[in-house]
Amino acid sequence: MPVLNLRSDLAEADALPEQMAAIGRRARAAARRMALASARTKDVALKLIAERIRASRDEILSENARDVAAARSAGQTAALIDRLTLDPGRLAAIADAVEKVGSLADPVGRQLAAIERPNGLLIERIAVPLGVVGVIFEARPNVTADAGALCLKAGNAAILRAGSDSHRSAMAIAKAMSRGLADAGLPEDAIQLVPTRDRAAVGLMLAGLDGCVDVIVPRGGRGLVERVQAEARVPVFAHLDGINHVYVAAAADLDMARTVLLNSKMRRTSVCGAAETLLVDRACAGTHLAPLVRALLDAGCAVRGDAATRAVDPRVTAASEEDWHTEYLDAIIAVRVVDGIAAAIEHIETYGSHHTDAIITENDAEAARFLAEVDSAIVTHNASTQFADGGEFGFGAEIGIATGRMHARGPVGVEQLTTFKYRVHGNGQIRP
Amino acid sequence: MPVLNLRSDLAEADALPEQMAAIGRRARAAARRMALASARTKDVALKLIAERIRASRDEILSENARDVAAARSAGQTAALIDRLTLDPGRLAAIADAVEKVGSLADPVGRQLAAIERPNGLLIERIAVPLGVVGVIFEARPNVTADAGALCLKAGNAAILRAGSDSHRSAMAIAKAMSRGLADAGLPEDAIQLVPTRDRAAVGLMLAGLDGCVDVIVPRGGRGLVERVQAEARVPVFAHLDGINHVYVAAAADLDMARTVLLNSKMRRTSVCGAAETLLVDRACAGTHLAPLVRALLDAGCAVRGDAATRAVDPRVTAASEEDWHTEYLDAIIAVRVVDGIAAAIEHIETYGSHHTDAIITENDAEAARFLAEVDSAIVTHNASTQFADGGEFGFGAEIGIATGRMHARGPVGVEQLTTFKYRVHGNGQIRP
Repeated sequence: MPVLNLRSDLAEADALPEQMAAIGRRARAAARRMALASARTKDVALKLIAERIRASRDEILSENARDVAAARSAGQTAALIDRLTLDPGRLAAIADAVEKVGSLADPVGRQLAAIERPNGLLIERIAVPLGVVGVIFEARPNVTADAGALCLKAGNAAILRAGSDSHRSAMAIAKAMSRGLADAGLPEDAIQLVPTRDRAAVGLMLAGLDGCVDVIVPRGGRGLVERVQAEARVPVFAHLDGINHVYVAAAADLDMARTVLLNSKMRRTSVCGAAETLLVDRACAGTHLAPLVRALLDAGCAVRGDAATRAVDPRVTAASEEDWHTEYLDAIIAVRVVDGIAAAIEHIETYGSHHTDAIITENDAEAARFLAEVDSAIVTHNASTQFADGGEFGFGAEIGIATGRMHARGPVGVEQLTTFKYRVHGNGQIRP
Repeated sequence: MPVLNLRSDLAEADALPEQMAAIGRRARAAARRMALASARTKDVALKLIAERIRASRDEILSENARDVAAARSAGQTAALIDRLTLDPGRLAAIADAVEKVGSLADPVGRQLAAIERPNGLLIERIAVPLGVVGVIFEARPNVTADAGALCLKAGNAAILRAGSDSHRSAMAIAKAMSRGLADAGLPEDAIQLVPTRDRAAVGLMLAGLDGCVDVIVPRGGRGLVERVQAEARVPVFAHLDGINHVYVAAAADLDMARTVLLNSKMRRTSVCGAAETLLVDRACAGTHLAPLVRALLDAGCAVRGDAATRAVDPRVTAASEEDWHTEYLDAIIAVRVVDGIAAAIEHIETYGSHHTDAIITENDAEAARFLAEVDSAIVTHNASTQFADGGEFGFGAEIGIATGRMHARGPVGVEQLTTFKYRVHGNGQIRP
C-alpha cells in the first residue's frame, strides 16, 4: 500500500505543474475576453452569478457541512470553524454582496488623462483590466465570491486557491460562479478554483504560471502573507501588519481624543485597522494621559506603558521594546509619552507598519505636518483608525488593504484592480 | 600574490553586504527628507546640480577619459566606446537636461481623488514620492544625471549602479550632483553611486537592501534587463523587447501607410519603439503589399516575408517562425499577410511584447477595435510606433519604458515615479 501511494503521489506531482499551467493559460484567455466585456454585460453576469449561488444553496451548504465536519475531526479551533461555517443567512449575504459589486461604477475604460500634442496627436491614458488576479485564501469560503466578484467587475480573470479546510465549499461556490458567467455569455474560466489541495500549487501560483498571473492577493493570517511576500515572483497586494498609532497632541480635545482612541482600539480589536499603540505628547500628559489610560482600562483593554504611563494607574504593566513592534489584534494597547510631534513621527516610522495612523489635535498646522510626514497608506486627522476599509472609503468593497508602495496602497477596490494603456490617435503623424 | 588577492577578495565580500545595506539606509533617510522638499527647493537643487556638473567639467571629462582608455585596452566595441564617451558638448547637454527636468510640473502633492463621505469625512488621495529608486545601468554615464534628476524631481532618492566601463565617469557626475543637493540644503545621499565594481552589489540591490529599495529601473541591453527581471525581489520598471507591429488594414490610405511604416521602421532602427513586423490585410494585399515592400527595400531595409510577400519582390527572403519573435533593432523587417483584423490581433498577441503597436486605417470602427483589443502599453492609430517616448508624450523626459502591467506602463516619467497615500480629514468621527 505505501508503495502504491507513493507512486500515485509521484504521478500527481508530475502532473501538477502542467495542470496549473493549463489553469493559467485558460485564465489568460478568459481575461482577454473579460477585458472586452461591456459594463452592462459584467453587471448582468454578477446578477446571474448571485442567482446561481442562491440556487446552489443546498449543494454549497452540504459541501460546507463536509468541510466543517472534517475540520472538527482534525481538531481545528473554534475560531477557524466559525470562519469556515456557512448557513443560509451567511450564504444569502454572500450572494447579495456579489450583486452589490455589480452596482459599482465600471472602473474600466475611464479616461485617466488626455494629452494633446502640438503635432496634433491625441494621447489618452485609459483604464484597462489588470489581467489575471491570483487569490490565495484560507478558511473563509466567502472569499471565493467576494474577491471573485471584484476581479470580474474590473474585467479580470481570477485564479482562486482555497485553504485545505474550505476547499469543498469554495469549489461549490466557484462552480456556481462559473455557471453564472456562462449564463451571461462570459467565459466560465474567468473564475477558476485550483482543484487540488496539494500545497505545491501555491508555489506554482507564486511563481506566476509562466506569466499568466499578474498579481497575487493573499487573504488570511500572517503566516500566509509572509510566505506569499517571501516567495512571490509577481506583484503582491497585501499588508503583513497593522501596527497603527493614535497620537494625541498637546492641542487635542480630550473628549474627542478619548472617543476616537476607544473606537480605534476597541470597536473591533481583531481588524487590521485597529490601533495598537497610543502616543501622548508630553506637553499634555499631565491633563490627558490619565483619563485616556483609565478609559482604556475601564473598557477592558490591558495597557502596557512606559514609566510615565505606569505612574498614572497601577493596572498598567510595563511595556518592553517588543511591545512597540507588536500587532496585538486583541484588547491590549501599548502607551508611550513622547516629546512632541517630531518624536511621535519618529516612533511611528521606526515601529509602524505604514498601514493607518491618526493624529488627534485642534492645531491644523500640526495635523498637516503629521499627514505629510507619516509615511503610511492612510493617515487620519481627528478620525478613527478603524475607517481603514474600502467600504468606509466609498469604494463599495475591497479585496484587501495594501501597505506596499506600488500600484495599490490602502484599500484595494475595483479601481486598483485596473491598470492603463495609452491610446494614440493620429492622422498620419511621423516622428521627425 | 594569488593568496593575498584571495584574502583581500574575501574581506571585501564580507564587507559588501554591510556596505550596501548602509547605502540603503542612507537612501531611505534621504528619501524621507526629499519627500518633504517643496517644488521650489527641488527645482533650485536641479539648477544647482546642473551648475555643479558644468563646474566639474574638467574632472568629469578626465575621469571619462580614463574609462574610455580602459575600455579600449579591454578591447570593447566601437559602439560601446561611443556610448561611453563624453565630450564638452555632450556634458553640456547633460547639464541642460538636468535643468530642464526642474522646469517640469511637480508630480508630488497632486490631489488624485477627493471623496466626501456621508459622515463628513473628507478623504484625499494625494501623490507622494515612491521612495528609493535603484537604477542599474551599463556604459552610458549620462544615465547618472538623467535618471537621477527624474528621481529627485519626484521627491525620491536614487541608488545608482554604473557598469564597470562607466564607473569613474558616473562617480564624478554623482559627486557633482551630491554637491548640488547640498548647495540647495537637500541631503547629499539622495544621489548615491555604488562605489564598488563588485558585481555582487547588483544582486544585493535586486534583493532590495532590507526593504530600502522600492523599485529597480534597469537601463541597458537585453542581458541586463533579463537578469534584473529574473532576480529582482522588488518591483521593476522595464521592457525586455519592443517587438512592435504595424498593421495595414484594408481601409488604409496607401500613402499614409507607406509614410508611417517607413518612419516606424527606419527613422531609427535601434530604438525600442521601432517597428519589427509589418502585417498587411489580405483584402488590400493586391494593391498595398508591393508598394510597401518596395518602399522598405528601397530605403535599405531587408525584408523577410511569408510566401505572399516573397511573391511581390525577388529581394524578399523567407521569414521563419523565429522572425515573428525577433526584435531586430536593425534595418530588417518581417512581413506577413493576415486575414483581417482578428488575425492581425491574434498575431500581435502571440508574438508581440506588449510595447507599441500601430494600425493604419481610415475605418474608425476598425481602429477602435484594434486600440481596445491589442493589449500593449501603447497602441497607435495612423501614427508612427516611434512616438513611444516620454518626450513625445509631453512628459518632458522619461526614465524608461515599461511593459509590465503594474503601476507604470509605457513611458515612465516623473508622475510614474510617485505613488499615493490617503489623507483622511475628520472632526472626531468614529466607525459605528
